[in-house]
Amino acid sequence: MKIGLLGSGTVGQTIGTKLVQLGHDVMMGSRDPANPTAITWAKKEGHHALYGTFMNAAAFGEIIINCTLGAASLSALNQAGRDNLKGKILIDTSNPLDYSNENWTLTICNTDSLGEQIQRAFPEAFVVKTLNTVNCNVMVDPRKLTEKTDLFVSGNDIEAKATVIAILRDWFGWQSVIDLGDIKTSRGVEMFVMFWHSLRDAVSSPRFNIKVVS
Amino acid sequence: MKIGLLGSGTVGQTIGTKLVQLGHDVMMGSRDPANPTAITWAKKEGHHALYGTFMNAAAFGEIIINCTLGAASLSALNQAGRDNLKGKILIDTSNPLDYSNENWTLTICNTDSLGEQIQRAFPEAFVVKTLNTVNCNVMVDPRKLTEKTDLFVSGNDIEAKATVIAILRDWFGWQSVIDLGDIKTSRGVEMFVMFWHSLRDAVSSPRFNIKVVS
Repeated sequence: MKIGLLGSGTVGQTIGTKLVQLGHDVMMGSRDPANPTAITWAKKEGHHALYGTFMNAAAFGEIIINCTLGAASLSALNQAGRDNLKGKILIDTSNPLDYSNENWTLTICNTDSLGEQIQRAFPEAFVVKTLNTVNCNVMVDPRKLTEKTDLFVSGNDIEAKATVIAILRDWFGWQSVIDLGDIKTSRGVEMFVMFWHSLRDAVSSPRFNIKVVS
Repeated sequence: MKIGLLGSGTVGQTIGTKLVQLGHDVMMGSRDPANPTAITWAKKEGHHALYGTFMNAAAFGEIIINCTLGAASLSALNQAGRDNLKGKILIDTSNPLDYSNENWTLTICNTDSLGEQIQRAFPEAFVVKTLNTVNCNVMVDPRKLTEKTDLFVSGNDIEAKATVIAILRDWFGWQSVIDLGDIKTSRGVEMFVMFWHSLRDAVSSPRFNIKVVS
């Protein structure tokens, strides 16, 4: 499948590399059409790995994955272009984090979420919020954890969520994905990031996840 | 031990009943000195169960447990009285929830938390935030879940947290309690409540908890 990745940071590179290894064609989109990080990544990963602008990547992808920093996501998606997102599944992995102070805080929370803002800004895309509750190494290889854990999806379109749940299982190995409901449930998973930050310090590693037990 | 419980709602009653069953002397404090719910509870639970005002309960308890609604907690603690909280462990189980609209929202989050506000308002009390991440039935009997799950403590005083961790284990059966750090980490566990709300809908029951897996 052709995947348009938005973002050349650690999350974009980790997901991009995994998808190339699986045989997909991946275009990594950046603000800068000659982003050195994206060029280096594409050279390393071989001929299934491409790079370009946000717009190039969104036009290329049958599915789009937003891996930009939360603070930059709406701007990146605007550059990607409404027409290039229309009718496509847009997997949103971002968190609206403000890293500027010692304690993480969120730029949006409680009465709104980045997931909702993206869906409102691009009503013709099928936004599915997922993967944002785990570190990127866990995103693409949950089987490295000592037990089966849970991932979550939020989105308004049932079929888009079903497709994403299948993708998460088949591409990355997520066997248990909980459908939280519509895109408004992005609030909870985005606000979870504050808790995740404390847990990371408590367990002294970003490689962990949670399992829901009844 | 003598326990001062603040709040006569479901959380206060559930914790109070468990503590009386364990042989502790529990005074349930309310705004109203003749709160019918507290009177009924005390009659049902026998001579180890007492009731009174917030001030009576705080003066009575060697340890204080705040089970009031988050929106009412600071007012209840002010009525309890600074002198009655001084030098005591104050277990804070509350969440700053606003139930007034269809979607839960928090009255405090992101850059502050109710746990921090309580600690700032009562600097001579040893505030330990805990139990607020689970339903009250899970609070007092985590062994009913199908697997061992995790509970969390946040607080500035190491000794107070050690005491609370022992209490959680010995009284309620919590075998795995993760120390998240100082009271500022209340932000994460309070913001988790938004996620908890979505999870409750997804699993169709409030009787669940999370397990941290590395």
